[in-house]
Amino acid sequence: MSGVSRREVVTGAAAAATGALLGGAAQAGAAPSAARTPRRRVDVVVIGAGLAGLSAASDLVRAGHSVVVLEARTRVGGRTLNHPVGDGEVIEVGGEWVGPGQDRIIARAREFGIKTFKTYTKGAQILDFEGKQTHFTGLIPPLPSPDAADFGQLLGKVVALQSTVPLTDPWMAPNAATLDSQTVETYMLANSSTNGAQFLLELAVKAIFATDSRDLSLLHALFYFHSGNGVINLASTAGGAQDSRFVGGSQLVSIELAKRLGDRIALGAAVRRIRQDRTGVTVTSDAGSWRGKRAIVAMSPMLAGRIDYEPALPALRDGLTQRVPNGSAIKYEAVFPKPFWRSAGLSGYSNSDRPPIHFTYDNSPPNGKPGVLLGFVVGEEARALGTLGPTERRRQVLAAFVRLFGPQAGRPRELIEHNWSEEPWTRGCYAGYMPPGVWSDFGSALREPIGRLHWAGTETSEIFTGYMDGAVRSGERAAAEVAPGL
Amino acid sequence: MSGVSRREVVTGAAAAATGALLGGAAQAGAAPSAARTPRRRVDVVVIGAGLAGLSAASDLVRAGHSVVVLEARTRVGGRTLNHPVGDGEVIEVGGEWVGPGQDRIIARAREFGIKTFKTYTKGAQILDFEGKQTHFTGLIPPLPSPDAADFGQLLGKVVALQSTVPLTDPWMAPNAATLDSQTVETYMLANSSTNGAQFLLELAVKAIFATDSRDLSLLHALFYFHSGNGVINLASTAGGAQDSRFVGGSQLVSIELAKRLGDRIALGAAVRRIRQDRTGVTVTSDAGSWRGKRAIVAMSPMLAGRIDYEPALPALRDGLTQRVPNGSAIKYEAVFPKPFWRSAGLSGYSNSDRPPIHFTYDNSPPNGKPGVLLGFVVGEEARALGTLGPTERRRQVLAAFVRLFGPQAGRPRELIEHNWSEEPWTRGCYAGYMPPGVWSDFGSALREPIGRLHWAGTETSEIFTGYMDGAVRSGERAAAEVAPGL
Repeated sequence: MSGVSRREVVTGAAAAATGALLGGAAQAGAAPSAARTPRRRVDVVVIGAGLAGLSAASDLVRAGHSVVVLEARTRVGGRTLNHPVGDGEVIEVGGEWVGPGQDRIIARAREFGIKTFKTYTKGAQILDFEGKQTHFTGLIPPLPSPDAADFGQLLGKVVALQSTVPLTDPWMAPNAATLDSQTVETYMLANSSTNGAQFLLELAVKAIFATDSRDLSLLHALFYFHSGNGVINLASTAGGAQDSRFVGGSQLVSIELAKRLGDRIALGAAVRRIRQDRTGVTVTSDAGSWRGKRAIVAMSPMLAGRIDYEPALPALRDGLTQRVPNGSAIKYEAVFPKPFWRSAGLSGYSNSDRPPIHFTYDNSPPNGKPGVLLGFVVGEEARALGTLGPTERRRQVLAAFVRLFGPQAGRPRELIEHNWSEEPWTRGCYAGYMPPGVWSDFGSALREPIGRLHWAGTETSEIFTGYMDGAVRSGERAAAEVAPGL
Repeated sequence: MSGVSRREVVTGAAAAATGALLGGAAQAGAAPSAARTPRRRVDVVVIGAGLAGLSAASDLVRAGHSVVVLEARTRVGGRTLNHPVGDGEVIEVGGEWVGPGQDRIIARAREFGIKTFKTYTKGAQILDFEGKQTHFTGLIPPLPSPDAADFGQLLGKVVALQSTVPLTDPWMAPNAATLDSQTVETYMLANSSTNGAQFLLELAVKAIFATDSRDLSLLHALFYFHSGNGVINLASTAGGAQDSRFVGGSQLVSIELAKRLGDRIALGAAVRRIRQDRTGVTVTSDAGSWRGKRAIVAMSPMLAGRIDYEPALPALRDGLTQRVPNGSAIKYEAVFPKPFWRSAGLSGYSNSDRPPIHFTYDNSPPNGKPGVLLGFVVGEEARALGTLGPTERRRQVLAAFVRLFGPQAGRPRELIEHNWSEEPWTRGCYAGYMPPGVWSDFGSALREPIGRLHWAGTETSEIFTGYMDGAVRSGERAAAEVAPGL
């Protein structure tokens, strides 16, 4: 399917989704009108039209149940979002990559005829470290040999440890109390001695979590690595978690799911309150109230904590929502007529120790038109950069691109910025993460239903947690969980 | 003032406060009726009728400004709460103690003629450690001499470090990045080697923060100690932060503040939305909407994050609200006809290494009638105990009291339980705390106003943060901050 016709599909689906806006009470600024809107009855009220919620709803409909999907935004896709770059081509400003083992998201895409293509990885990668730039190929950038040896032994320890953490109940790992009582930075400093080794592990952590090693429980990092087939897989492009992309953009999977759900989706329907009683749940949104037998809350734990529950959530579940902040990611995508770095023998991939951009990718559409250079600003750099004005942000980002890819990189025809921490209905990407102690004391509340309330969202997945694949799996698990109670 | 007449004041104030419920739309279960209720106009809308909000409102009224205080509960006092124990006497199930340096809460109390009395500390204290019970006096329980020496050097290091953390901007401390990248547990394990030393520091941390050393940024703990005149002051009863109590109960300070604010307080007015524009703020609550020139949000950062803001909060402020969970405290108070431990030469104070109760106090009213034994369950023990049924909780708590104070302690005429993590409008005590990395990246958003929104609550205080005194100070600071803009 050509890029042009794909674009039409995107537009058509968006129009269909808008048509699904029920009730008409969701205009910006309209006061909550719950009490005046007649209740609709369904088997399951799904809250959130990201991949988790849409996958859950899709499975439930297939099994013959009635559903409504309530979505705060006026679009579907949650943390995936396509962005047009001209000529019918799109890039993603949210989650985008898939790779081996991410079977459920790939299966969903295949159902809709959405194809994948390989992330561009030909040519040399750049290492920008301690003021010097070198080219390299493969996963691990070249370091001075003591640093390389140090990184080797550090990585070896992490790889050995990650498989000891069980995916269902990470707090049951051998030495879980010890692993959950320290940050990843503490572990790194105790188990390595060179700048190079620490730079590379920090880089991997930032790339994988969009937060810093200092912020994370070691147990959580190990669990997350294990969930995604290991830290090496998660850090890898070719053959790894960033292996491939979706033709037409990753949001297309959600858009296609939404098309099939049709008017079961209500947009502009921010959920404010969920009340459960002996016979069902009443969900109050900005677009009216729905009554269901059960509800699936398909969003990050933090966002789920901002809904008002009746009866109030038990302390452990509420406490969990207080303790799983979302990472901090800003994607910068510089759009050029062509991916000029390719002709210079560069892949567009780089690793740098200089803020604010520590890693870049070639993010061009499949045909390489236009050329798109993607720079990530994550963790502490995202928090700092986000407080600056737009001119200064642009200046810093383009300066980083120029340092890595030459003066041409400073003159894109467009610089796209997407800061997920500014979006009220996401408030941070890629996903929620656990600081020390949270898995140990609150982990059991992550998936456990509360009466008629069930929890989905990529954070609740045992497999590829934090990824699009984890989101799909979480929705499928939640759908299977509610079905016997319908 | 006798206990009986004091009780009448309490009752009278409660009635007056109920009379202040404006609008009448706050019945349980009533749908938000904001749009139908006429707006009231004031200079400042204060959100939260705890000590912070009430102090702010009180100062503003004194300066001639009009205010409304919107309170979700049907009572004032926030994290302070009196509980009757018969014969007109009360005890506190929330914050209760004051000591040297806590000048602002003491000054507020004095204005209303509320007196203080000394926490009961006569007689021996119990140390229950490694299966043996011993009696001791003074702050530091007796340990085997290697452990005592080890604790001495560990405490010395902490005491030296705490004063290096500035109270206004903790992230500017020398070595702030290092201090904020590790948990208190990591520091403790690296700087001590004996069970005894680690037991005592963990005990102090649990008693001071209601969470575990594993959960806390070292930088945060040092800031908090410094804010409260040092860890020794915070851990001390006589002459320290637990030196004295208020006759009539600590909630009386809030009740007296509320009496003077009269119908400026609206109870049952849970705030759902705060909208600001160029000329003011509109605050929408379950009891209607108010329009003000400015708003003071006087609650813990986490709770403040559960309000819907228009325009949406900047990423840094929102990110802060995701990262400052509240501690976990359950207070158990066993009520006996007399404080029988006193005649056995015991103070009622104990330290234990056995869960779930690691420390106890004599919490009897001033005249010792009835006798009240207070046991704290905090941090991980509170999270675990809170998931058990009421019979099992009671069994475990009474077994702990019996082990420490003999069989009589197992037969109270009443066992009062208060789990602050279960209260929807608090969701954890004593206060919000910072995991690693939060001060460094989000600390600047703690107090900084967002346009017409100002932030109070004990977490925002530089002095005695986390204490009643810090709450009062934060309200006074916020009132001074808004005044020039009125």
